Amino acid sequence: MTSPQPAETRTQGRSTQSATLAEIARAAGVSAPTVSKVLNGRADVAPATRSRVEELLRAHGYRRRRAEATRSPLIDLVFHELESAWAMEVIRGVENVARDAGLSVVLSESAGRLTPGRSWADQVAARRPHGVVLVLSGLDESQRALLTSRSIPFVVMDPAGDPGTDVPSIGATNWQGGLAATRHLVELGHRRIGAISGPSRMMCSRARVDGYRAALETAGLPVDPELITAGDFHHEAGYRQGLALLRRPDRPTAVFAGNDLQALGLYEAARELGLRIPEDLSVVGFDDLPVARWVGPPLTTVRQPLTEMAEAAARLVLDLGRADGSAAATRVELATSLVVRSSTAPPASARAETSGEG
Amino acid sequence: MTSPQPAETRTQGRSTQSATLAEIARAAGVSAPTVSKVLNGRADVAPATRSRVEELLRAHGYRRRRAEATRSPLIDLVFHELESAWAMEVIRGVENVARDAGLSVVLSESAGRLTPGRSWADQVAARRPHGVVLVLSGLDESQRALLTSRSIPFVVMDPAGDPGTDVPSIGATNWQGGLAATRHLVELGHRRIGAISGPSRMMCSRARVDGYRAALETAGLPVDPELITAGDFHHEAGYRQGLALLRRPDRPTAVFAGNDLQALGLYEAARELGLRIPEDLSVVGFDDLPVARWVGPPLTTVRQPLTEMAEAAARLVLDLGRADGSAAATRVELATSLVVRSSTAPPASARAETSGEG
Repeated sequence: MTSPQPAETRTQGRSTQSATLAEIARAAGVSAPTVSKVLNGRADVAPATRSRVEELLRAHGYRRRRAEATRSPLIDLVFHELESAWAMEVIRGVENVARDAGLSVVLSESAGRLTPGRSWADQVAARRPHGVVLVLSGLDESQRALLTSRSIPFVVMDPAGDPGTDVPSIGATNWQGGLAATRHLVELGHRRIGAISGPSRMMCSRARVDGYRAALETAGLPVDPELITAGDFHHEAGYRQGLALLRRPDRPTAVFAGNDLQALGLYEAARELGLRIPEDLSVVGFDDLPVARWVGPPLTTVRQPLTEMAEAAARLVLDLGRADGSAAATRVELATSLVVRSSTAPPASARAETSGEG
Repeated sequence: MTSPQPAETRTQGRSTQSATLAEIARAAGVSAPTVSKVLNGRADVAPATRSRVEELLRAHGYRRRRAEATRSPLIDLVFHELESAWAMEVIRGVENVARDAGLSVVLSESAGRLTPGRSWADQVAARRPHGVVLVLSGLDESQRALLTSRSIPFVVMDPAGDPGTDVPSIGATNWQGGLAATRHLVELGHRRIGAISGPSRMMCSRARVDGYRAALETAGLPVDPELITAGDFHHEAGYRQGLALLRRPDRPTAVFAGNDLQALGLYEAARELGLRIPEDLSVVGFDDLPVARWVGPPLTTVRQPLTEMAEAAARLVLDLGRADGSAAATRVELATSLVVRSSTAPPASARAETSGEG
């Protein structure tokens, strides 16, 4: 009240913001402090009032000004599911960047839903992190509006669906990876090559299988739809789909699995049917998790630089926070690379021909 | 200032606290708001002032009253290192309890140090979580004092060192696990059984090896110190220590590994030396990570209920927060159990005798 600050400065520093906040308050028929409460994610606002205010914030494209948004030293990291060693690689990447920036990482799981729940968005609005990294998980329109109105930037890593051109995202060259994996098998002499894919609603799965198809087609080999199966990204799916593929009378001599966990499930299916890897069956995975080196035989796989991708996503979200809030949306794809180990070899027929035992 | 609240109530509600806070302020030669700033982890306090105030808070055993400690909807989870699939099981457990309680999990890594850094403690004090779960990681005296003065409860999961009787902790019956693993090998007929242990500074490693020794001794078998090696808990250590053990002229016919990752390293060492599992070498691991089921052959191991332990730790820390702040320290050990799969079998000599081929 007795501040020595000149009146001009105060007006200059606050006018635009106050006007907008006041406008929202007037339109909603509430006080400005109530709008502030909603913006700060406070619980003491009636649900009906809250949604009226949120709706108006969205309609007006309200965006909290940077200087006012006192941030907590946190980065939010949201997973679709926290199930596998895959997640560990991602956590490590975000943790690396956060530590260097003096931030801590808040971990959430959207628990099998592909977009995190509404209460999650409220919690994020209340804790005001520097940014949000979403892994295989998207935001719906109202959640995006909520984060945008609070000037909380977000980045999607390895999007499950099409993230839209206006959403910054970090991916890997999945199509190239599928192509490289399948070409490797073709070059070894395989002609009947199966594929186990991840969920078709995930773009990364589709891209991998499309790369597989492209490799077959460019090699002049037929694409047999019966040899392409789909499951989720877990070990169990690799095992079940693997059993189905390997029990066929015309079973494939090689399989490109959707990821390393599926490849391990496929190993189990092969063991159960008495098929040796790579003598009777060649297997290529995707990801190059630490375990790929440890299994017997060590797995040939497409390396996806998960930790580096997570680091890139975390860096991008911090950059967006430092920029003026309207930084151009970006899509970055980091390169995949084939790592050849011991689970791939020429098919028995090719070896037999070479050695004349056929 | 113009509050209609009766004077008595105000005095009653604040006297004890104010007196103490005021005392601290007087002793430190600062204002009461400055002490508040230190308590709230605010950055705008000179370092010298901060440490003087912290010292006095500690000396006076100051404890922020529950009602005043407005908590954030967070649980802090601190790892010694975020390296393995092991960590994933723990994260999942804490996440389960946090989700049910409407809390989010903040993840930190003490990055190879066994106690998290000083700035970590300041950050925790500033964000005021409901509690802190420390995994294989301890707190030093000043960190404990800092959390205690803010009434932030903490629990240590699977302590690396002796946590002290006044620190609530959740562990597993490591000694029983070592005993069960080794007895299983003795019952199969093994007489020369090696052990690869984790770091000797971690109580869980010591307990496992002690259980191994007890099994040998109670079976009347000699304990050969040359067959007991130590490394860290990673794959690489299992590989190196495994090579050393298996290259001995009097190599063991079975090895009890310190954990599953070491067991996988041992698998690799055996493969490299052309030894078959379980025909030439029996292997038992510890933890029962998902991968134990997936490797070839599937690993016999001691199951440690990591997710359940993490859930118990998170529940305990929330209970401590609800209690009056001086709840009795607790030590809970969850049971381990032997899971027999395909990596263990009678030694070749025993099989030869039985089949008369010896």
